[in-house]
Amino acid sequence: MSHWESIDGHIATPAGFRAAAVAAGIKKAKGALDLALIVSDAKGTSAAGAFTTNRAAAAPVLLSRHHLALSQGRARAIIVNAGNANAATGRAGLEAAERTTKAVAKLLKVPVEQVLVASTGVIGVPLNVDLISKKLPALHESLPSEDAASVTRAIMTTDTFPKCCVMRAELAGKTVHLAGIAKGAGMIHPRMATMLSFITTDAAIKPRMLQAMLAEVVERSFNRISVDGDTSTNDTVFMLASGASGVPVRPGDRSRSWFVAALSQLCETLAKMIARDGEGAKKLVTLEIAGARSPGDAERVARAIANSPLVKTAIAGSDPNWGRILCAAGYSGARFDPNRVDIRVNDFFLCRKGLDVGFNEAAAKREFDRKELTLHVDLHAGSASTRFWTCDLTHDYITINASYRT
Amino acid sequence: MSHWESIDGHIATPAGFRAAAVAAGIKKAKGALDLALIVSDAKGTSAAGAFTTNRAAAAPVLLSRHHLALSQGRARAIIVNAGNANAATGRAGLEAAERTTKAVAKLLKVPVEQVLVASTGVIGVPLNVDLISKKLPALHESLPSEDAASVTRAIMTTDTFPKCCVMRAELAGKTVHLAGIAKGAGMIHPRMATMLSFITTDAAIKPRMLQAMLAEVVERSFNRISVDGDTSTNDTVFMLASGASGVPVRPGDRSRSWFVAALSQLCETLAKMIARDGEGAKKLVTLEIAGARSPGDAERVARAIANSPLVKTAIAGSDPNWGRILCAAGYSGARFDPNRVDIRVNDFFLCRKGLDVGFNEAAAKREFDRKELTLHVDLHAGSASTRFWTCDLTHDYITINASYRT
Repeated sequence: MSHWESIDGHIATPAGFRAAAVAAGIKKAKGALDLALIVSDAKGTSAAGAFTTNRAAAAPVLLSRHHLALSQGRARAIIVNAGNANAATGRAGLEAAERTTKAVAKLLKVPVEQVLVASTGVIGVPLNVDLISKKLPALHESLPSEDAASVTRAIMTTDTFPKCCVMRAELAGKTVHLAGIAKGAGMIHPRMATMLSFITTDAAIKPRMLQAMLAEVVERSFNRISVDGDTSTNDTVFMLASGASGVPVRPGDRSRSWFVAALSQLCETLAKMIARDGEGAKKLVTLEIAGARSPGDAERVARAIANSPLVKTAIAGSDPNWGRILCAAGYSGARFDPNRVDIRVNDFFLCRKGLDVGFNEAAAKREFDRKELTLHVDLHAGSASTRFWTCDLTHDYITINASYRT
Repeated sequence: MSHWESIDGHIATPAGFRAAAVAAGIKKAKGALDLALIVSDAKGTSAAGAFTTNRAAAAPVLLSRHHLALSQGRARAIIVNAGNANAATGRAGLEAAERTTKAVAKLLKVPVEQVLVASTGVIGVPLNVDLISKKLPALHESLPSEDAASVTRAIMTTDTFPKCCVMRAELAGKTVHLAGIAKGAGMIHPRMATMLSFITTDAAIKPRMLQAMLAEVVERSFNRISVDGDTSTNDTVFMLASGASGVPVRPGDRSRSWFVAALSQLCETLAKMIARDGEGAKKLVTLEIAGARSPGDAERVARAIANSPLVKTAIAGSDPNWGRILCAAGYSGARFDPNRVDIRVNDFFLCRKGLDVGFNEAAAKREFDRKELTLHVDLHAGSASTRFWTCDLTHDYITINASYRT
C-alpha cells in the first residue's frame, strides 16, 4: 500500500477508460471544443454522483440522477456539453437530454440508464440536440486515437485554465490510478452556470461504497468553496470506477481510508483550482475556522465570511479589515462570544479576544498582498473546526457579469 | 381623522422635540458634523427600539437595549455619533457608551437609562469619549437655536444624500406629526457599518404599544432591504413619542391602524432611500414575490434574489437574465415547481411557466435601463407574497469597498 503520487495524465489515464472531445457548434466561438465523451470499457463499472441542491435543477441533473437510481450505480459513459446548460428548458429540455443519452447508448451498445449526461452554459435557451447527434458518431470513432486531454478543455466555459489532477499508487504489486477534471464554479458568464467535475479510477469499488465515499469527500471539498454564493442549476460530480487495475477497495478495510485520503486530495486540489479561477479572482483565500460549538456553527461562520462581499472586496484591496470578518461571523447564526474571538491572516494576528491588537498596517497589508492567503478565525466556543476556500471580489467580476450584452 | 400628508421639516418638527448637531472631530473630514442630540422635553416620552441581530452587536446597541429595559420604554434623549461605530471595542467600548449617556443625562437632568445612544463608522477602533464630552455642553446650549435639519447630515457616513421624511395629519381638531431620518445601509466604507434611523412623533402612545408598532413596521420596511447582504453590528432604529400633540393612539382603536399606516409609509420611504443609496448603486429594484407556499418561503426567495451578486450585476448591465433570478429562487430553500414560475420586469414578461417567452431583447433591455424597476416573481405554489427592495451591483461598489487604504 504505497503513497499516492501526482503524475501527468488525463481523465482516461486510469485503465479501462477512453475519452475524446469534438467541436459541435454549441459554444458561440467557432471551432471551440464543446462536446466530450468519457467511456469505460469495463462491463461492471461502478458509478456515483453528487448533484446541485437547487430546486430548479437542470434537465441533465434530473435525468442522470434517475439513471443512477435505475442502474443501481452502474454506468459506462458520461456525455457532456458546454455552451448550453439545458436548464430552465422544461419538458423539451428533458427530451433533449433523453435523446442524447439514447444516442450514446446505441453507439456504445450499453443500456441507456448506464449513460450519464451533464451540461454547462447558457440557461433558458433550448438545446439543439441535432448539433450533438450529428457529431456523436465521429466522437465515438475518435475514441481510440483521440487525445483525452482535450476533454478538460472541452468542458471549460469562462475558466482561464484547465483543471486536471491525476494520481497513482501501488497495492500488492498492482498499479491503481485516480484522475479528475473540473470546470469553473460560480455562474461565470451571464446565463452561464455550473461547476462540473468528472472522476475516474481503475480501482474496483462496489457502487454503494463508491457513492458513500464520493458523498463524504464532496462534502469537504467541492461543497467547501464559494465564488459568489450562487448555487448553480447544473452542479454535478460524476465518478466512475472501472476495476481494471484489479485493485479492490473494500469497506472496513485499510484500503478504504487509503483510497479516501487520495480521493480527498484529488477533490480538494480541483476545488481549490475552481476557487482560484473564480470570476475576476486574483487571490485564493483559505478559511480556517476553529473553536466552534458544533460543526454546523463552524460551517455557518465559514460560509458567511466566504460569501460576504465586504470581506471579499477588502481582500481584493489588501485591507486588513478584521472588523468585517468578525461582523460576518456575527450574523452567521453561529453561537459564540465576540469578546473571545481571535483572527489572523496567515501567522499575523489582527484581533485577539475581539479587540484590535494594534498591528502594523504595512506589515498586515503585505500578508494580504499574497496570491494565496489563509484567514484563521478561532471562536473559542468549542472544539469544532472546518476549512473553506474562496476568492477575492474584484472589478473584473462586475465586468464579466454585467457587460456580456453591452 | 384626516389623511396624512408629507410636509417639509426635520426630526424636531413634532411638538416637544429639539435637536442639534456639532462637529466633534470624530469623522476624519475636518469640520464635518458628527455628533447629534435629539431631546424630548415631555417627561413621559415613550421610547421603542429595534436592533441588529448580529451576535457581535456594538456597545451602543448593548447599552441602549439595556436602558430601554430598565426604563420600561421611556427615554428623553438620543445621542448619536458618526465616524466611529464603537463596535468590536470590548469592555472599553461599553464604558465609552456609558460615559457618553451619563454625561447627557447630567446635562438634561434625566435618569441615565432614559438616554439612548447610537454610533456608526469604523469598527474595531477605540472611541475617544473626550471628543464627545468636550462638545456636549455646547451641543446642549445650541438646542434652542440650532437648525435641527443638520442632524440628518451629522449621521451620514458615505451616504450621497440626506434621508428625511416628515408627515402631518389632523385628529379631532389637533395636529399630529411623524418625522424620521435615516442613514445608509450596507457596510459602506471599509470598517464602516450600519443603518440608523430615528423617528419622532408628538402622538401620545404607551411604551408597550409603541414597541409593538415599531417592531411590526420595521419588519416590513427596514428588514426588507438589502444592499450587500451584510448585517451590520450597529443597525438601530429608535422611536420617541412625546405626546405633546395631545392626540392619543390607542390599542383596539381606529387610531392604531391610522397611525400604523403612516408609520409604515414613513419607514418604507426611508428604507427605499437607503436601498437607492446603496454603495455604488445606480438603480432601485423592488422585488414583488407572489404565489409562495408560506410567508417564510416568499421571504427566502426575496432574500436570495436580493443578495445574489449575479442577479445584481445583471441588473447593473441591463441584462434581462431571468435564468439567474430563477436560479436564485431555486437555491433559496423555498418549495416550488420551477416549471410553473412566471418572471417579469415591470409589466414585461421574460419567463412563463419556467420557460423563456421569446421576448424582444432590446425592449427588455429598455425596461432594465430604468432607474427604478420592479421584478415580479410568481411561484404559483400558494398565496403568500412579500415585497423587498435592493439595488444593482456596480464597479463603484468594488471601488468604494476595496480602495479605502490604497
